[in-house]
Amino acid sequence: MKNLDERTITQAVIERNSSSGNERLKDVMHSLVQHLHSFAREIELTEEEWEIGIKFLTDVGQICSPTRQEFILLSDTLGLSTLVIAQNHKKPVGCTEATVFGPFHVQNAPRLPLGSNMSIGVKGTPWFVNGQVRGIDGKVIPYAEIEVWQADDDGFYDVQKEGLNEYQGRAIFTADQEGKYYFETIVPEAYPIPHDGPVGKMLEALNRHPWRPAHLHFMISAPGYERLVTHVFKESGEYLDSDAVFGVRSSLIAEWTYHENGTDQNGQFHATPFYTLDFDFILNHKKEAVRHD
Amino acid sequence: MKNLDERTITQAVIERNSSSGNERLKDVMHSLVQHLHSFAREIELTEEEWEIGIKFLTDVGQICSPTRQEFILLSDTLGLSTLVIAQNHKKPVGCTEATVFGPFHVQNAPRLPLGSNMSIGVKGTPWFVNGQVRGIDGKVIPYAEIEVWQADDDGFYDVQKEGLNEYQGRAIFTADQEGKYYFETIVPEAYPIPHDGPVGKMLEALNRHPWRPAHLHFMISAPGYERLVTHVFKESGEYLDSDAVFGVRSSLIAEWTYHENGTDQNGQFHATPFYTLDFDFILNHKKEAVRHD
Repeated sequence: MKNLDERTITQAVIERNSSSGNERLKDVMHSLVQHLHSFAREIELTEEEWEIGIKFLTDVGQICSPTRQEFILLSDTLGLSTLVIAQNHKKPVGCTEATVFGPFHVQNAPRLPLGSNMSIGVKGTPWFVNGQVRGIDGKVIPYAEIEVWQADDDGFYDVQKEGLNEYQGRAIFTADQEGKYYFETIVPEAYPIPHDGPVGKMLEALNRHPWRPAHLHFMISAPGYERLVTHVFKESGEYLDSDAVFGVRSSLIAEWTYHENGTDQNGQFHATPFYTLDFDFILNHKKEAVRHD
Repeated sequence: MKNLDERTITQAVIERNSSSGNERLKDVMHSLVQHLHSFAREIELTEEEWEIGIKFLTDVGQICSPTRQEFILLSDTLGLSTLVIAQNHKKPVGCTEATVFGPFHVQNAPRLPLGSNMSIGVKGTPWFVNGQVRGIDGKVIPYAEIEVWQADDDGFYDVQKEGLNEYQGRAIFTADQEGKYYFETIVPEAYPIPHDGPVGKMLEALNRHPWRPAHLHFMISAPGYERLVTHVFKESGEYLDSDAVFGVRSSLIAEWTYHENGTDQNGQFHATPFYTLDFDFILNHKKEAVRHD
């Protein structure tokens, strides 16, 4: 192993990695090294470009913080996130599709009772969201945990706002016995992904815009069912055809219905116009763990 | 572009990137996206593994500092650095081979006169290094700039030592009119690459040791010649066959000659044993820039 050159180095690295006791890791590293090296060979990567790449990845890592995940953003904008989600969630027709997780989820969002207003001090047009959680077999799923997060009507998430001491526009609800959920919030707008960092520079160099169509994030968990991470997009909103992170599915686009101010169907009076959304989630059964006995 | 799935996403990303005015960037991104996605498909990357990968890359970025470059270390340990160097330095037989740059080079190393001791306060066995810089055509190259850096005899570089206010074991020399260089230092030992970070964890999971064989770094620049970045390795030292960063070339292994204390061939008296190294560097001519007129 003293005379490696551009022809022999790949096999040498793969052999060096082959003594791991972790078979899966070995397979992953084998494929990774082959593709990484094939990439460098195919485009005849120069040393100057290699340096630019090292600097880019370093910048991506350095800008990460507890409230900013630039590597997820990079994965999202390169379509890797969509690919990984798609190949891991091949579900029966009829299940709600999954989409990208995005970089703005946080641990420990506040748990709120059904019907609460989760916008918590954010101005915007009121929005009443409701629906039901069912299994692909048609059965109601009681007490599913429904985590929701969203941008405000300026396109910012709470974690992007400096000096904010509480969460805004995110909550965890528990559906009722009939699988029903309902809460109040404000209508989120389309927004650009954070583009003041290295991923933003990459998009600019690629002549790509950083915008995402308006959407509401959902993560739904219930015992015996696959966890669902998805969005609901606004019908006829902007950027549905050019989402910067390739997250749109037709089946996830829904009508966000506009209502003039006045009394709604439940007899409640609204001083200003408001929106409603009615969206049901259909969960897939969890794959049974393979038994080794 | 609303119904991307695991079959259509790759082409969608490539098309989205195709409006850049930078043709080279477009080619690089095309190949990058294809190989990144092929990797994820080939090993059927799970979401959990994707998360581990995001966390790993984030950790690599976060541990980087002005004196630590963990992404270069990652590139080195995956053999990418050796590949890039090899494919960018296909030189005529007879030229000194290039090898990895490594993460311990710094800007603004002290310029010292020929014959100086660059170890600057580091204990160790004295080492007298000398040689000549010539072109592949056999001509002497006068006044070449010779930058040298090395670990101490505990295997640490100056930048790894906290609280040190000066550079140790690194210097820039200018060869004389006959291309000759000579300086004093101490003998560096084999050392493990920094393995208290994410790259160290990767090596451990792969059952790989982090050691590099003893070596001295050189970077040699002269007008009209290709810059040479290389090492000189210690003959019959440990780890020559299993360098953690795949940097060893047979042609770069040289005798580090041991001498008992006493008077040397120049009549100089040495109270303790010492080593010498005599190593010539043969530079390649710079490729002429392609003219566009």
